[in-house]
Amino acid sequence: MILPFDDNYFMKKALQEAEAAFDLGEVPVGAIVVVQDRIIARAHNLTEQLHDVTAHAEMQAITAAANFLGGKYLHNCTLYVTLEPCQMCAGALYWSQIPKIVYGATDTERGCGVMGTTLHPKTKIVGGIMEDEASELLKKFFIKKRNLN
Amino acid sequence: MILPFDDNYFMKKALQEAEAAFDLGEVPVGAIVVVQDRIIARAHNLTEQLHDVTAHAEMQAITAAANFLGGKYLHNCTLYVTLEPCQMCAGALYWSQIPKIVYGATDTERGCGVMGTTLHPKTKIVGGIMEDEASELLKKFFIKKRNLN
Repeated sequence: MILPFDDNYFMKKALQEAEAAFDLGEVPVGAIVVVQDRIIARAHNLTEQLHDVTAHAEMQAITAAANFLGGKYLHNCTLYVTLEPCQMCAGALYWSQIPKIVYGATDTERGCGVMGTTLHPKTKIVGGIMEDEASELLKKFFIKKRNLN
Repeated sequence: MILPFDDNYFMKKALQEAEAAFDLGEVPVGAIVVVQDRIIARAHNLTEQLHDVTAHAEMQAITAAANFLGGKYLHNCTLYVTLEPCQMCAGALYWSQIPKIVYGATDTERGCGVMGTTLHPKTKIVGGIMEDEASELLKKFFIKKRNLN
């Protein structure tokens, strides 16, 4: 039996969110939260639209998922995000006690890895899922932005 | 001439917010954002009421201040918070490029200092302002909580 639900399947959904951010002129990052193969939250970066540095895709996905679950802990959840979380988002994920984070492209400048953020002991983090697609979209965004300025 | 506006003056306002959180059964942390001696945002922890780990006092104060200013950068602002910011909040403050953070009590377990969070190069951080008052309120909260359980 071929199972349709794997990390690539869900990362594609997060990439669709990143594309929605791209279309709005936002840095294209998308995130979803999954419980038992069910997507319970979808979000994309909105920092420019909302004039709010806290409006990263992950932050909104965490809030939406907690709202769906009716509790602040994201036990049994997996967060898929197209770009490695920053300190703020990894810090929020720490408080959520989420067991798994899956990201696409590595952020070598502002990612939680290079910044030295502490993850929750219960949290496992996996990177590089559909990394090329996530990176290409980010590159396309920054080339377009440079050409407009 | 005695200037009424100093760090203690503004920390008292942040403490009033922390007291409001206490009254709601929230971990008592309050925050305000100040520009040129004017308070442009007031907030307190709401993680329990909202079932949302992202609802720390600082996060809400950042969003409210950016909303007031009409832009996402908190240039020329000072954030006063009764407890040392965690990784998430310090990470959000990193993105805001805020020039100054003033906190009350040190969080020796989950504070950005001990967790190793990177602050923005433009940001100066000062701790220990009205530390005793902030610590007392936190202690009172946790004693009350223990006795209820």
